[in-house]
Amino acid sequence: MMNAILASTSTLHNQDYLEYLIPHLPGLYKNAKEVLFIPYARPEGISHEEYTEKAAEAFSEAGIKIKGIHEFENPVTAIKEADGIFTGGGNTFLLVSKLYRNKVMNVIKEVVKNGTPYMGTSAGTNIGGLSMQTTNDMPIVYPPSFQTLSLVPFNINPHYLDPNPNSEHKGETRETRIKEFHGLNSQPVVGLREGSWLELRDNKVTLKGELQARVFEKDKLPFEVETGTDLTDLN
Amino acid sequence: MMNAILASTSTLHNQDYLEYLIPHLPGLYKNAKEVLFIPYARPEGISHEEYTEKAAEAFSEAGIKIKGIHEFENPVTAIKEADGIFTGGGNTFLLVSKLYRNKVMNVIKEVVKNGTPYMGTSAGTNIGGLSMQTTNDMPIVYPPSFQTLSLVPFNINPHYLDPNPNSEHKGETRETRIKEFHGLNSQPVVGLREGSWLELRDNKVTLKGELQARVFEKDKLPFEVETGTDLTDLN
Repeated sequence: MMNAILASTSTLHNQDYLEYLIPHLPGLYKNAKEVLFIPYARPEGISHEEYTEKAAEAFSEAGIKIKGIHEFENPVTAIKEADGIFTGGGNTFLLVSKLYRNKVMNVIKEVVKNGTPYMGTSAGTNIGGLSMQTTNDMPIVYPPSFQTLSLVPFNINPHYLDPNPNSEHKGETRETRIKEFHGLNSQPVVGLREGSWLELRDNKVTLKGELQARVFEKDKLPFEVETGTDLTDLN
Repeated sequence: MMNAILASTSTLHNQDYLEYLIPHLPGLYKNAKEVLFIPYARPEGISHEEYTEKAAEAFSEAGIKIKGIHEFENPVTAIKEADGIFTGGGNTFLLVSKLYRNKVMNVIKEVVKNGTPYMGTSAGTNIGGLSMQTTNDMPIVYPPSFQTLSLVPFNINPHYLDPNPNSEHKGETRETRIKEFHGLNSQPVVGLREGSWLELRDNKVTLKGELQARVFEKDKLPFEVETGTDLTDLN
């Protein structure tokens, strides 16, 4: 029985970090005394300590404590014993590399599938899919694999961005990139716009937030799904 | 003595495929009877044959013949015997995977460093740098390595896009992504705007086209360089 929030972004325009997600934290982490924070995705600028402090400050608004995984001697034990997990955003290649290097990718998968509440934002959401192959991030480091947690039976594209009809730029649109993904891969992709999240609860996957999401299936035209749509059987 | 054009894009807004590059083809491929085309980067939609035909049509305007690498029994021999090489755009992960799988990455590097004229656009330009780690593409396939041709002593970001000051989108800007790259890597990155290219000739690397390029060095503020700037010693 999974219990998770996979959010497109940590921060909405003109809002504070995690602001729109804070009302949902007590429901997600209801029996958690302390939530384990995974800051691995941040490539530069702020340290694990600073990033953890930032998350702790936001979580404190929901009355929940945070402790960074880097504060534990053994990351595997930390995950096994965690009351809840939150993986912050940054660079997905870096996040996935560090999860494999610290031998915790499969441990997280196991505990979350067994009920440990999980929240991800951005890169932390990307890894909730079957693979990280629909990330928008730059390959700043070479991970040992692109396979991720498979909490949902499809791939996720966070920060989904609609094509700009006035653009004169010839770089690929997000939609084109996902179409290219389907040239070589068969799993569906859910494009989660900022402000949307997937709720995993009672063995169901539901689209939450105010916006529609865009669903891409191999060899089909992409389509929009309304908030509240059950995506459990999308595979 | 290298002889190469590494172009940001194949196609400018309101122009035909390769249109702005055609006047430069006779100078680059001056002794070539036929140019070898590498269509590996295209993930879907058009076949190697169709992509090669498209390239052949554009090259015919400069009076140059094209033959696709897939038409040869042995791709290694095809590259060793080529009078010139052109690598088209598409997905860099796919291009790099196929170059390694067909054991031609190091062969291309060797022949181009020994004087075989080379042109790349987009993904074909990305691989001209030290690594493909500043690509904008999605990781639709897992390549055996991120290391590429190293024709220039830095990395390239094709289709370089300036941040949109009015954007409310919270996904990383291109500049942020490159900054993240420098959190883990030390080589400079040249952001090539569409319409710009690097000319490699007489052991010199020169910025060409009408626009400035943006140069990113680790722990420094990014800066603009004018067209005509010698980038040979950027490393």
